[in-house]
Amino acid sequence: MDRLWSTLEHSAEIGKGRAPGLCRLALTDADEAMRDVFRQWCRDADMAVAYDAAGNVFARRAGTDDSLNPVVVGSHLDTQVAGGRYDGILGVLAGLEVVRTLNDFQLETRFPIEIACWTNEEGARFQPPMMGSSVFAGLLALDTMRATVDDDGISAGDELDRLGYGEPELSLGRTFDAYFELHIEQAPQLDRARQPLGIVTGGYKTHGLRLVLTGKTGHSGPTEMSDRRDALAAAAKIVSCVYDIGFQYAQTGGKATCPYLVPWPNKPGIISERAVLTLDCRHPEPDQADAMLADIEVAIGSHARSCRVQADIKQRWQFGDEKFSADLIDLCRDTAVAMDIPCRNMLSQAGHDAYPLSKLCPTVILFTPCKDGISHNEAEDIDRDLSEPGINVLLNAVRERACRMP
Amino acid sequence: MDRLWSTLEHSAEIGKGRAPGLCRLALTDADEAMRDVFRQWCRDADMAVAYDAAGNVFARRAGTDDSLNPVVVGSHLDTQVAGGRYDGILGVLAGLEVVRTLNDFQLETRFPIEIACWTNEEGARFQPPMMGSSVFAGLLALDTMRATVDDDGISAGDELDRLGYGEPELSLGRTFDAYFELHIEQAPQLDRARQPLGIVTGGYKTHGLRLVLTGKTGHSGPTEMSDRRDALAAAAKIVSCVYDIGFQYAQTGGKATCPYLVPWPNKPGIISERAVLTLDCRHPEPDQADAMLADIEVAIGSHARSCRVQADIKQRWQFGDEKFSADLIDLCRDTAVAMDIPCRNMLSQAGHDAYPLSKLCPTVILFTPCKDGISHNEAEDIDRDLSEPGINVLLNAVRERACRMP
Repeated sequence: MDRLWSTLEHSAEIGKGRAPGLCRLALTDADEAMRDVFRQWCRDADMAVAYDAAGNVFARRAGTDDSLNPVVVGSHLDTQVAGGRYDGILGVLAGLEVVRTLNDFQLETRFPIEIACWTNEEGARFQPPMMGSSVFAGLLALDTMRATVDDDGISAGDELDRLGYGEPELSLGRTFDAYFELHIEQAPQLDRARQPLGIVTGGYKTHGLRLVLTGKTGHSGPTEMSDRRDALAAAAKIVSCVYDIGFQYAQTGGKATCPYLVPWPNKPGIISERAVLTLDCRHPEPDQADAMLADIEVAIGSHARSCRVQADIKQRWQFGDEKFSADLIDLCRDTAVAMDIPCRNMLSQAGHDAYPLSKLCPTVILFTPCKDGISHNEAEDIDRDLSEPGINVLLNAVRERACRMP
Repeated sequence: MDRLWSTLEHSAEIGKGRAPGLCRLALTDADEAMRDVFRQWCRDADMAVAYDAAGNVFARRAGTDDSLNPVVVGSHLDTQVAGGRYDGILGVLAGLEVVRTLNDFQLETRFPIEIACWTNEEGARFQPPMMGSSVFAGLLALDTMRATVDDDGISAGDELDRLGYGEPELSLGRTFDAYFELHIEQAPQLDRARQPLGIVTGGYKTHGLRLVLTGKTGHSGPTEMSDRRDALAAAAKIVSCVYDIGFQYAQTGGKATCPYLVPWPNKPGIISERAVLTLDCRHPEPDQADAMLADIEVAIGSHARSCRVQADIKQRWQFGDEKFSADLIDLCRDTAVAMDIPCRNMLSQAGHDAYPLSKLCPTVILFTPCKDGISHNEAEDIDRDLSEPGINVLLNAVRERACRMP
């Protein structure tokens, strides 16, 4: 735990945002600086490091039968603009700590073990989120990923090439024996109960979309209200509705958010001709998530019409209704019980790389508590003592899985 | 008219935005390139060119009694991001044409004549609008102007220094004998009536403000709706209300607009902590403009409370209830009548440098038609034949004023 903690502390020095948080957007220099450190730590632990065409980085510890498919532990090292120091990072570095600990005790495993660092899980710089793992799992085309541009018009493809991921060493969609991801829970359930471990059985179904509204620019003074085609006004009405729809479904666990809105020209004195926004909604019951999306689409149509602007949904994504592996859930629960560590079944409310991976191989997520459930925020914090039991369950479950008879 | 037209054509090559419009934000290289051309044209017309501390440029043609205060004709050469080629520009270049024509006919005037080019009338880059003329008139402190930053954090003061306006040649607030401004009308009244000239007797009272909303960032997934303090949601509700308030007062001529909104961090996956927006409302009846502002402030307070964000009004501006000079209005009307040019009295719906100037000296605005009333838009266009009569009224009225016995 001391060593793991020191790696977390080291990570928290790279790409500092507002204190004490991080700003380490995917495929930036800060993200790459952290990956460099991670790769060095992996090599120091006698692992072989390689990458694929999506910039996903894998560090491998050989198994005694190295022809078997690897047991993989992973998450991501990128953060939000005003992000925390544990979201994703804890999962990657806990994976590293699993290997370091096996090394310390000279414990071999039958199956190889790999630690995965997925590219652009956050989706803060390039949309959709979980980009690298989605490309790996074949849910998103590599060409689509490469063509995606950030707010400054820089493409993910150019950034991958710039950072040296242009000639991949590993193929996409390799077969894994199993995928484990440890993550802070990002909700206050474990923290409030002072419980150390949640075993994630599934997620909140989540819909996301990117909307472009097109109106007509003009002078904000003399242009008659009835002549206006104000894209920002239409966007505002839609954002307002999305927020209200979130509250309408909140009693049963629904949430809806517009996190991103860019009007154009966006200067005083001039009516907005264009507005781009992203929004998402999620609900523990998949049909309710679908109903929220339907309500949102009605609001988009209605306000686009009333403001006389054109609405184009340019991109859609969804995740969260996958079910995780019963075998791995049982393994983690049995491991926790054997170690006398209290745990509970949970649903994930956020997106994780485990979702796309679950399309490829048996997958499970372990949640450890985070203080007050705050994440994507510099105030994100975890309690070291309350994190340790979950990480030890990860260690023993991975070892068990990797040592079993095939 | 040919020559004036060629100057307008020349201007329209500098700082091209989307065809056929212009993007010539105040104190940018494109703005300065146009000012360079303007200064050269003035020198070619035997005028002396100088500037003040706000970067306002004045070109002077001596009077036969050069100790008299100048008769000034002015407007601005900066544009919006997706601006037209006549808004402001026509007024400055029509002033130049007045002098060129007096030169051609070797007509002297008793009073000196100056052509003024005011800095940042648009307010697109730095707020408030009419910045240079407001500083000149003592309505805005020079230090405040210099400290104002654009969206990239660059201050107007640094730009003034960079462009060589740091050591002013002329003092602010000099006494003018009169100020004339010719401008496209920016509303379709003259164009629809196919009338060439409006004499502006006053304006729509206009309130503007810059609002900063401060909430709390967090994960757009697990953060409970009831725990949110979403600054973008609050901004959207306010923008939506401002738009609706515009419609509520539209029957009697009211308008309300949010032209500018910047949320932060503004990345998918994360709740907005901060949102900055500007808004304005205007009405031909001053008490109704005040009522609109009061309604907007109620909406700001109400939605800030309901979204649990802090609302701070960081800046306020107002203009438009000034009355223009009865003497100059009579002079312009008499001139038009003598020339058999039909004209009507009008109110200005937009802001103009004439508003601050009217605090200092007798002031009047002449409106010429613009097609369909479209401005602040690349589609801004004027009819040459329909513009000529108004420009000739300007010429004769300025000459009359500048030749009178003091």
